[in-house]
Amino acid sequence: MKVIADLCVVPIGVGVSLGNYIAECEKILAKAGLKTRLHGYGTNIEGEWDAVMRAVKECHEKLHAMGAPRISSTLRLGTRVDRDQTIEDKIRSVREKL
Amino acid sequence: MKVIADLCVVPIGVGVSLGNYIAECEKILAKAGLKTRLHGYGTNIEGEWDAVMRAVKECHEKLHAMGAPRISSTLRLGTRVDRDQTIEDKIRSVREKL
Amino acid sequence: MKVIADLCVVPIGVGVSLGNYIAECEKILAKAGLKTRLHGYGTNIEGEWDAVMRAVKECHEKLHAMGAPRISSTLRLGTRVDRDQTIEDKIRSVREKL
Amino acid sequence: MKVIADLCVVPIGVGVSLGNYIAECEKILAKAGLKTRLHGYGTNIEGEWDAVMRAVKECHEKLHAMGAPRISSTLRLGTRVDRDQTIEDKIRSVREKL
Repeated sequence: MKVIADLCVVPIGVGVSLGNYIAECEKILAKAGLKTRLHGYGTNIEGEWDAVMRAVKECHEKLHAMGAPRISSTLRLGTRVDRDQTIEDKIRSVREKL
Repeated sequence: MKVIADLCVVPIGVGVSLGNYIAECEKILAKAGLKTRLHGYGTNIEGEWDAVMRAVKECHEKLHAMGAPRISSTLRLGTRVDRDQTIEDKIRSVREKL
Repeated sequence: MKVIADLCVVPIGVGVSLGNYIAECEKILAKAGLKTRLHGYGTNIEGEWDAVMRAVKECHEKLHAMGAPRISSTLRLGTRVDRDQTIEDKIRSVREKL
Repeated sequence: MKVIADLCVVPIGVGVSLGNYIAECEKILAKAGLKTRLHGYGTNIEGEWDAVMRAVKECHEKLHAMGAPRISSTLRLGTRVDRDQTIEDKIRSVREKL
């Protein structure tokens, strides 16, 4: 089952500058071979469900290892079985109607 | 790694009455032995990360099998390594300050 | 327009104990006369759209005034025009199918 | 108070093709003079809190007027008082660490 996800990770208890932590997550997602697209409030991720979820877990584990005592993430999870769709397809389906 | 999650599953393309689909998810979470707490806009889930995620995946698979062509879920994921905390602890820590 | 919302407020840069901040939000929501239901990862809120949104803004303002330099909240927003529905109705429509 | 938000609107009960509805929301956000950035699972929005929230409400009203009986949106809301930050700043603060 393929998923298009959107992940926003918020480490808690490490101050207000979170860029370092988010960058580590980006590296984990890239190393996992997942297609990603960073935006201003999270990251789009496209891939097989298990691979995406394994990478999300690795993000939490890594940030705790980096010293974050607490993490609160939000994840949007989109799956569909009627047809195949990519991140670019989703954006195009909106843009072509503007 | 333990997680306290909050899951809200929205099947798309099956009309406006979603109670049947949400009830199926509740059954899956219960059968997985996870602690859950249904509320008015989702379900709190407490358990080991892998068990929680396996159940969330099963919810998507089941709802597709029931005929939902498309699903959009949102998941909040809270982990902490500084101390153990349950759903009840979290609620109590707010209530005792009211 | 009535809304059933679910709010999860995460103040950033104030350490790992957030109960005090969440309790302040609960007080704001109650004082606004909104129906609420605290759970383990947020709070259900039922009311008129403008009243709910005014209270959510007041939560952010209050937490900044309490010293939180940064806040990241997540809000689920459910509206429907086909029929009236309460938080309790939503829970019941799932429970009666279990 | 300035906010950087991320909005994902899901109309329910209008089938599986949602591009038309999302495009209407994009038009509303643009007409409101807000800075936006469409991605694969929502839209970043930057602006004054009240202006952003007024536009989000207008999205719900418009989609109901277009025939959607039910809508479930998710909104991430980021505010900070320690310094000014734009959508581009947030993306850059991650990219420069990769």
